[in-house]
Amino acid sequence: MPDYLSMTKDQLKQELQELMAAYKNYQSLGLTLDMSRGKPGVDQLSVSNGLLDAITSHDWDDENNHSLRYLNYGLLTGIDECKEIFANLLDVPMKNVIVCGNSSLNLMFDYLTQCMLTGSDGTPWKDQGEIKFLCPSPGYDRHFAICEYYGIKMITVHMTETGPDMDEVEEYIKDPKVKGMFCVPKYSNPTGVTYSHETVERIAAMRPAADDFRIIWDNAYIVHDLASKGDKLDNIFESLKKYGHEDMVIEFTSTSKISFPGAGVAALAASDRNIEIIKSRLKYQTIGYDKLNQYRHVKFYKNVEGLKNYMRLHRNILAPKFKIVLYEFELKLSGYGIAKWTYPKGGYFINLDVYPGTAKRVCELCKKAGVTLTPAGATFPYGIDPEDKNLRIAPSYPPVDELLTATKLLCLCVKIAAAEKLIEK
Amino acid sequence: MPDYLSMTKDQLKQELQELMAAYKNYQSLGLTLDMSRGKPGVDQLSVSNGLLDAITSHDWDDENNHSLRYLNYGLLTGIDECKEIFANLLDVPMKNVIVCGNSSLNLMFDYLTQCMLTGSDGTPWKDQGEIKFLCPSPGYDRHFAICEYYGIKMITVHMTETGPDMDEVEEYIKDPKVKGMFCVPKYSNPTGVTYSHETVERIAAMRPAADDFRIIWDNAYIVHDLASKGDKLDNIFESLKKYGHEDMVIEFTSTSKISFPGAGVAALAASDRNIEIIKSRLKYQTIGYDKLNQYRHVKFYKNVEGLKNYMRLHRNILAPKFKIVLYEFELKLSGYGIAKWTYPKGGYFINLDVYPGTAKRVCELCKKAGVTLTPAGATFPYGIDPEDKNLRIAPSYPPVDELLTATKLLCLCVKIAAAEKLIEK
Repeated sequence: MPDYLSMTKDQLKQELQELMAAYKNYQSLGLTLDMSRGKPGVDQLSVSNGLLDAITSHDWDDENNHSLRYLNYGLLTGIDECKEIFANLLDVPMKNVIVCGNSSLNLMFDYLTQCMLTGSDGTPWKDQGEIKFLCPSPGYDRHFAICEYYGIKMITVHMTETGPDMDEVEEYIKDPKVKGMFCVPKYSNPTGVTYSHETVERIAAMRPAADDFRIIWDNAYIVHDLASKGDKLDNIFESLKKYGHEDMVIEFTSTSKISFPGAGVAALAASDRNIEIIKSRLKYQTIGYDKLNQYRHVKFYKNVEGLKNYMRLHRNILAPKFKIVLYEFELKLSGYGIAKWTYPKGGYFINLDVYPGTAKRVCELCKKAGVTLTPAGATFPYGIDPEDKNLRIAPSYPPVDELLTATKLLCLCVKIAAAEKLIEK
Repeated sequence: MPDYLSMTKDQLKQELQELMAAYKNYQSLGLTLDMSRGKPGVDQLSVSNGLLDAITSHDWDDENNHSLRYLNYGLLTGIDECKEIFANLLDVPMKNVIVCGNSSLNLMFDYLTQCMLTGSDGTPWKDQGEIKFLCPSPGYDRHFAICEYYGIKMITVHMTETGPDMDEVEEYIKDPKVKGMFCVPKYSNPTGVTYSHETVERIAAMRPAADDFRIIWDNAYIVHDLASKGDKLDNIFESLKKYGHEDMVIEFTSTSKISFPGAGVAALAASDRNIEIIKSRLKYQTIGYDKLNQYRHVKFYKNVEGLKNYMRLHRNILAPKFKIVLYEFELKLSGYGIAKWTYPKGGYFINLDVYPGTAKRVCELCKKAGVTLTPAGATFPYGIDPEDKNLRIAPSYPPVDELLTATKLLCLCVKIAAAEKLIEK
């Protein structure tokens, strides 16, 4: 296996010529494949198709009229049965849960909007001059986009194998302008990292200079194991309790990748104080979320164990897709010294670091041969990857055969871009 | 029929004694009835129960996979088939419609939030010092509540039988601090008034001093006729076009009182420019609304004619309820000189003006006998009815027999409160 880094320029040119010949073959196939977003594939959608039958007009004959009971305005914080499922999922008391609409991103946006306009618990953020947010990176582009929309200055914090670099975090929070941090604590998007016990503990123990500092704890992949024995994440609220700092974190989750993306149920969990503050906005914002869809989920899953059982079906579909990509990476990219990747135990992404300075070029090459990747840089604040090396690979959406083809092409493009870059040097 | 206003105090005292005896009888019944909100009753909910069967797991076998197509992220502005229904309903082009989630109130809240933080089309409202909103009153309490939440100063504009008093409006908008106005242009909440052609024309022709002035055109009762020949409202966007002022109005509506309250679909219509501005927020706020529920509505109603057919079924249930209340009012309150009420041709409310200074007392009396009314004052900004006389009567929710009982009690309380007040004088 030739290490590109120890090859001569002539050897590299020879190699590049061969790679380009193979690439042209791919181009002639006229592919249109998408590995850009963490979207469940059609096979996964069918896992939840029973959800569509969970409430029917026959429920009108139900003696207890459960469906009917939820067919009207009211119940601002969601229906109890659904709250119970999320409370058990997040391992928090029901009173600390609000069950909402179809999008947890929407909840995070609304929460940050509230912080901007009326404050997290004090002066509105908009009235405090330039404010900043910590963004462990690579991270989730939609988080960063909210900051950008509101003109919140983003500070990149390095992701390690145990979570955000806490030395950096502890330093940054001495600045009272730093108002919060985005975290995807389990199977982090895109690195797949689950925050270690020590990381969660250090986060809970934090004493930011800004006493209105808030952590957006986006637990999007809470039960999204790919391995039979998945990662374990500490319960952040249990940890916070030890330090009397429960108000620092708002947790979000949803069934977007449990039931149907875009037609699931989202929820948040927070301290008593934060629930009160959020409710004080919610009562003006809406008369209530879609309780019928909440109840549909309750009837389908019954309880949190039922929900977890369905996650096994997702795993049976997803895990082989990840294996296909990872096996191909090993076969085609190992030993060349030009790429590193993660072996996530859950979540929706493989983190691929290509040869520095070539991530954009890899995307471009893939695109020109019909395979869409998440744009290079998207995993960093302002879309700028300082080393131009990080790629977020999403194996879930394409069917297996297409996924294999796309991955083969991707590996080829990684090698082409590296060879080009090394020849340039 | 004795006119209370021409009775002596002794006569009134005698009358009050008799009324109180009847009132005590009601109290002994232990009623718990609710005439407070414009909620459809159980009988109305069953009109739409087929909606629950509109999409089932059998759709997986559908060759065209329509349901599946909408079972994933994307389509920020809603699905085309649903957009078409709302475009036809609102009589605007599809490109000027965004189909959203379950609550039009939520859309209005989000829109005003956006105006506050990033501006309607210019400087953020929050950066313009004290700003004001025109609130035709009596009006909708949830509109006023949003203004109150954001500290927007509310200016009461009198409602006439043809809409807001446009002389007042035209005077107020000379103030650049006046940034907008709430309107329920058809079957207005609670007066039932539909804005006349002349009113709509004068609104469209307005040139507010604030060029970022926005009208929240809450067309909540757009097809909610109670009479076989309902009111006709001019298309505001057609009128605006004549004056080149399409950007001044954002229109909102929903199926909350067409399909299921809280589980329907909401939509907004706006000019090209405003649609662009709203989309520039939406793309950060959410990955998409619940398209499955949008498609469920499409499959159920097929098209706007289908939807209107269902409204006839609602009318068949609602119209008799309104008749019961109005007949009771005529029977029990006519000729006493102490009350006036409306005969709405649509919408969800009867506007009842009781003897000045007694609306709060009427609510209290009803409450103590087990009938909940919309709180007196709720129909005015800050919850303060300057004459303490306006009551919003919602006949839709109670079953017919309960409605009759509640109305009889209400009439009694109106008379008691008036007699008390006149004795005091």
